[in-house]
Amino acid sequence: MKITIDAVSDLLKSMDDVLILAHENPDGDAVGSACALCRAMLKLGKNAKVSIERVSNKLSYLLTDVPTGDFDYKYVVAVDTADNNILGVSNTSVTKNSKINLCIDHHFSNVLYAEKTYLDEKAAGACEAIFDILKCMNIEIDKDIAECLYVGISTDTGCFRFGNTTSKTLRTAAELIDLGVNNAKVNRLQFETKSKEYAKLEQMAISSMNTYFSGKCAVLPITYDMFIKSGADDSDTSALASLPRQIEGVLIGVTMKEKVKGTFRISVRTNPPADASAVAGMLGGGGHRLAAGCSFEGSLNDALKAVLKCAESELKEIGEL
Amino acid sequence: MKITIDAVSDLLKSMDDVLILAHENPDGDAVGSACALCRAMLKLGKNAKVSIERVSNKLSYLLTDVPTGDFDYKYVVAVDTADNNILGVSNTSVTKNSKINLCIDHHFSNVLYAEKTYLDEKAAGACEAIFDILKCMNIEIDKDIAECLYVGISTDTGCFRFGNTTSKTLRTAAELIDLGVNNAKVNRLQFETKSKEYAKLEQMAISSMNTYFSGKCAVLPITYDMFIKSGADDSDTSALASLPRQIEGVLIGVTMKEKVKGTFRISVRTNPPADASAVAGMLGGGGHRLAAGCSFEGSLNDALKAVLKCAESELKEIGEL
Repeated sequence: MKITIDAVSDLLKSMDDVLILAHENPDGDAVGSACALCRAMLKLGKNAKVSIERVSNKLSYLLTDVPTGDFDYKYVVAVDTADNNILGVSNTSVTKNSKINLCIDHHFSNVLYAEKTYLDEKAAGACEAIFDILKCMNIEIDKDIAECLYVGISTDTGCFRFGNTTSKTLRTAAELIDLGVNNAKVNRLQFETKSKEYAKLEQMAISSMNTYFSGKCAVLPITYDMFIKSGADDSDTSALASLPRQIEGVLIGVTMKEKVKGTFRISVRTNPPADASAVAGMLGGGGHRLAAGCSFEGSLNDALKAVLKCAESELKEIGEL
Repeated sequence: MKITIDAVSDLLKSMDDVLILAHENPDGDAVGSACALCRAMLKLGKNAKVSIERVSNKLSYLLTDVPTGDFDYKYVVAVDTADNNILGVSNTSVTKNSKINLCIDHHFSNVLYAEKTYLDEKAAGACEAIFDILKCMNIEIDKDIAECLYVGISTDTGCFRFGNTTSKTLRTAAELIDLGVNNAKVNRLQFETKSKEYAKLEQMAISSMNTYFSGKCAVLPITYDMFIKSGADDSDTSALASLPRQIEGVLIGVTMKEKVKGTFRISVRTNPPADASAVAGMLGGGGHRLAAGCSFEGSLNDALKAVLKCAESELKEIGEL
């Protein structure tokens, strides 16, 4: 059941002993929204913990002083998670089919798996929705909460570059800066810093990018071998995900990341009218119209074949093939 | 002489027959601020023209319906130009030593060459200053003016990523979106679109990047040969300029672009405490603390030697060597 912002505010005020979850392979918006919500609940004197799987180095500092792990919770709240089958539950007694009391999300593809769902499809990130909720709850947004929210909003918008950035998104970010976020520092860490190993990985990946279907689809493979050769162990390759789509004429840009041998994390980015969630959906994934993802088990060749088949189907669907 | 925002507003209202200039190798902020100001003057019923040199493909549409070229002007206004020796005057009867009646700028290094200068050092771009001036003049900012200003602000901040982005910058951009700017479309063109040839140029340039002084300096050469081999004729390689600085440990990141054989346009980007304007200044250039530029005539080897000598000097200056 979808609920209003007033209802979600009242619901959060009424809850205690809350376990906060987010999706697997958590990005900045997942970590930021979980941590911001937890910090806010603690400010209300409530017992709350966050459980997130494998947080990347660049994001782990957001968890400083945030209680984490499993406990004898009464309520489970999921943030930034469109589908219970991608909930990150491995460190908890929760299963992907457990009852989730509340979900706060911004993905239009949310399958409404939770008892109650606050869904703001216009929000650029779950963090933008949580900012509004905390305001509605009259909770003071301190510098730490503001930083969590800023990281979520900035990372989910490619630092305000992507099409999900609205004037409200920019005003929210402005307010977070006025609340003490050092945006220059955050942006340097999230968008302007890469290890030497990661720079090498990028070099190899970029040089192996290829185009298909008369340049309407571009695929950038980040293979297991590249990880080994570069020595990079960074799991966040989200900056690479937008590269294939940037080439003029490309409607469907794909990155295929093989961090674990034989397992591909596939990111699809499209230019209109191509629909990324349609492409990812054919391989069991989902997401937004311009950005979506899915997984694939198999060889590089099989992954590429599968991706190209889906891309071909979508290009036909929109009359481009 | 520096003047206030009220004074510059009154001055612009009192002027007619105005020639608007910007700096050589004009970027988005130069083109955006010149075109926005010209459109605003026309709205006041005044005679005004813009003269800018060699505008890149991505920016030329901002000049649509803007009168350009030389004419029998009474006043000359320079925007976004810190020094008269970099004024783009080749298409006009103005010389670099001519009297400039007014300069509107945001570079702290402005040498105050104009009779009167409105300098807003806190503005992320000259366009942010011009937005404030137009408000002060009570000129309606229509969609076309808004788009010029948005392009200037977004390109000068790396789409709100660089350290010059303030909460005021974000609120200004939000207002411009509300005035009708399709930010998703503008961002796709300015930041997310590259020709196949340019993508190839990038590939070659990135793979030839090297680090020096224990990884504290990184240099990315974009040579004449790379332009020839890739077939790219895009003169805007500003996206590459931020790459060397992104590698962890790099304090001074340099790109050396040889669009014309033997002539290097050098961009310096630094991480604090390294000072980009100090590095560029040693080669006769200038700019901001974190972003600056200069030119060099000679071979690739000589350019590299000169750059490394300046970088070494700055690294010693800040105690890093």
